[in-house]
Amino acid sequence: MRDLADDLWGDLQPAASRRLLLAAVEAFAKNGYHNTTTREIAAAAGMSPAAVYVHYKSKAELLRAISQIGHEAAYSTLEAAVVRHAGDPVECLKAAVAAFTSWHARNYLVARVIQDELDSLDIADYEVILPLRRRTTGLVTNILEAGQAAGVFAIDDIALTTRGIFSMIIDTARWRRPTTRLSPHQVGIAYANLVLRMVDTKPVRTDAEKSRSA
Amino acid sequence: MRDLADDLWGDLQPAASRRLLLAAVEAFAKNGYHNTTTREIAAAAGMSPAAVYVHYKSKAELLRAISQIGHEAAYSTLEAAVVRHAGDPVECLKAAVAAFTSWHARNYLVARVIQDELDSLDIADYEVILPLRRRTTGLVTNILEAGQAAGVFAIDDIALTTRGIFSMIIDTARWRRPTTRLSPHQVGIAYANLVLRMVDTKPVRTDAEKSRSA
Repeated sequence: MRDLADDLWGDLQPAASRRLLLAAVEAFAKNGYHNTTTREIAAAAGMSPAAVYVHYKSKAELLRAISQIGHEAAYSTLEAAVVRHAGDPVECLKAAVAAFTSWHARNYLVARVIQDELDSLDIADYEVILPLRRRTTGLVTNILEAGQAAGVFAIDDIALTTRGIFSMIIDTARWRRPTTRLSPHQVGIAYANLVLRMVDTKPVRTDAEKSRSA
Repeated sequence: MRDLADDLWGDLQPAASRRLLLAAVEAFAKNGYHNTTTREIAAAAGMSPAAVYVHYKSKAELLRAISQIGHEAAYSTLEAAVVRHAGDPVECLKAAVAAFTSWHARNYLVARVIQDELDSLDIADYEVILPLRRRTTGLVTNILEAGQAAGVFAIDDIALTTRGIFSMIIDTARWRRPTTRLSPHQVGIAYANLVLRMVDTKPVRTDAEKSRSA
């Protein structure tokens, strides 16, 4: 479980609750929500099936908790980067993409579950998550609009560009393995540079160009 | 089923076989492979469960057929674009991204199934598909390398850039709905422009910039 960042679940009490969520994330990521039984999750957490129900009334409730904690953590990470660079769209976009990417690369199991099991949520739970997802997308759209208005970005279609950026970033959770050559931080920096080139009016010098002119 | 391009299955005979694959794609895309029974697929195709087995021995064989036909069609689409512009990395990448994107946006149900059910394939089937996926990725990597060597692209990390490009493109199949504002062709052109800006040494003028200077 070393790839699940501790801080994501650190506040969660009691410990048994946290252990169950970690076991559920691993099981859902590996076999899918529908192929996992509550009994298997209990066993992986070293608990009896009956003990699970003290903490979570159903498998659906485990998924709801994972989805909510995951979406909130991803949102907070992105928001913190945005707030830190408010007023400077270029630096803001750079920090936002780097932070959001490295969150997805680092927490790839949770990120995969919250993306790929979105359809497995109960309708009522989905309706809680949806506004949070829209707020998350909105943060990036706002940066693109601010940069466009300030004349530092030149974007043909802000909605579609937002889509493309999120697709790139979120998919890191799908392809990432513990053996991946680049660290989450490195992938974040690299993606931030790619995204800046997609939107910036000024050509961004890449390492490849710098070494050529050196 | 209007969103499943006919040409993808056009050659498949007999018609009952084709009808079964179409029904299976719809069911797998909607409910997932593991939540779909062969009986449901048979009913959707207007056939008895026994009649299914004349054409496909198992649900796994249906998924194998969909995965193989889908991956081969996507590869051929990409390859045709590459061949048409061989020798010109910029035009080649533009055509490749536009064609591959519009294939994914147009055939989004099939594309979603072949991506998201990759882990549901039998090992032996997966081992047939994997080299095809590597050849597909390889086509884009080759263009990036050729452009880098010719000095028209400036890319810091060709493998990671290839990843980012494929993530953007393939994810169109996940977010696309029949009601999506842009046509598959329009998404293809827009993504081709975004990708060119990611890699090109020359700044690419966007519509936003053109209208500003007009």
